[in-house]
Amino acid sequence: MADSPGSAPAPSSRRRRVLPSGHPRPRYDLERLLAVAVEVFSERGYDGTSVEHLSTASGLSKSSIYHHIDSKEDLLRLALEQAINPLRATRNERGAQEGRAIDRLCYLIHRNVEILCERVPYVTLLLRVHGNTETERWALQERRAFDAFVAEIVQSAVDEGDLRPGPDALTTARLIFGMINSLIEWYKPGRGPSPAELADAIENMVMDGHSAQES
Amino acid sequence: MADSPGSAPAPSSRRRRVLPSGHPRPRYDLERLLAVAVEVFSERGYDGTSVEHLSTASGLSKSSIYHHIDSKEDLLRLALEQAINPLRATRNERGAQEGRAIDRLCYLIHRNVEILCERVPYVTLLLRVHGNTETERWALQERRAFDAFVAEIVQSAVDEGDLRPGPDALTTARLIFGMINSLIEWYKPGRGPSPAELADAIENMVMDGHSAQES
Repeated sequence: MADSPGSAPAPSSRRRRVLPSGHPRPRYDLERLLAVAVEVFSERGYDGTSVEHLSTASGLSKSSIYHHIDSKEDLLRLALEQAINPLRATRNERGAQEGRAIDRLCYLIHRNVEILCERVPYVTLLLRVHGNTETERWALQERRAFDAFVAEIVQSAVDEGDLRPGPDALTTARLIFGMINSLIEWYKPGRGPSPAELADAIENMVMDGHSAQES
Repeated sequence: MADSPGSAPAPSSRRRRVLPSGHPRPRYDLERLLAVAVEVFSERGYDGTSVEHLSTASGLSKSSIYHHIDSKEDLLRLALEQAINPLRATRNERGAQEGRAIDRLCYLIHRNVEILCERVPYVTLLLRVHGNTETERWALQERRAFDAFVAEIVQSAVDEGDLRPGPDALTTARLIFGMINSLIEWYKPGRGPSPAELADAIENMVMDGHSAQES
């Protein structure tokens, strides 16, 4: 999040507030509000959540909430950015840009598992978005753009002779990332396989499958 | 759904109503209510949905709604049964009970894709359940029982030498069914691959992966 005058412009222009210098409380409140909001939005749905609900759940007064945000939708955008920004950024990372398509695909699988496991509540919110507001439609568009980006890489890997095509590149991309996204359902930090082991398991399934017949 | 005196006892005992004979309207209303409820629950979350919301969305009066159900939770259970009952039933089907474990696994993949594609809104509701009510906890338990059932089959297929183990059988089962469940995100009847093609694509990925190197 942009929290100092020198950082990059905030994607959500309405949320910029000058924080009183030397006063850490507002920043703490905003982080807390965000952490609470992502849970309440996922639980009640964005439409079913009122600022009243957020106030009750966070213990912050409504006026304190409105000190940080202009609207509930502002908060949704901030929360979604916690998932979308790092996921979008992976597309420009070297591992996703250079080398054979099959290696770029594996890189994206690993990076996405990593980010998802670090930010389960935010990715969960992203995956539950409906599209009733401008912010939700923006999030859906980001998801579609990501799918299209991966589909292009899958197609390139097929063209380079490294992957067998599934029904079509977009379906294959969606199935792979559907499998990754399903981790939100059950992944718990410190329990069961680690993010790196999960990424390996997914890569192995995508590349070689589980049949023992070939070896 | 149980709708005549001669049919099997309804799993949700509170919802039994004697329908006036020769009067199709109540049955129609219940189906309509169910179809509306599953959408509203998925959109607003179960906690965020009131009977008032259901009344507005369905065009049925509250008293008409309470003619069919005793509570909002009743309706949730009815809606969840639309997904859980057929999914649970697959476990007892011949294809899931007889033959080598690898074939039983493939059978379950195909049957689950089929049911999911037929009942997207109901399966979506099932996959969004939180666990705040008895009904939701029942649904979560059904999901866990299903995962455990599939994990056992995966383990048997490993033991029979047909599958290579992933990190562990439960993780492999969850990844496979996570990929299947992700279809709710984008599957549209009559657009893109058919359910049978999707099931084949998933089976192929699970068994052989997409790497072109082996062939």
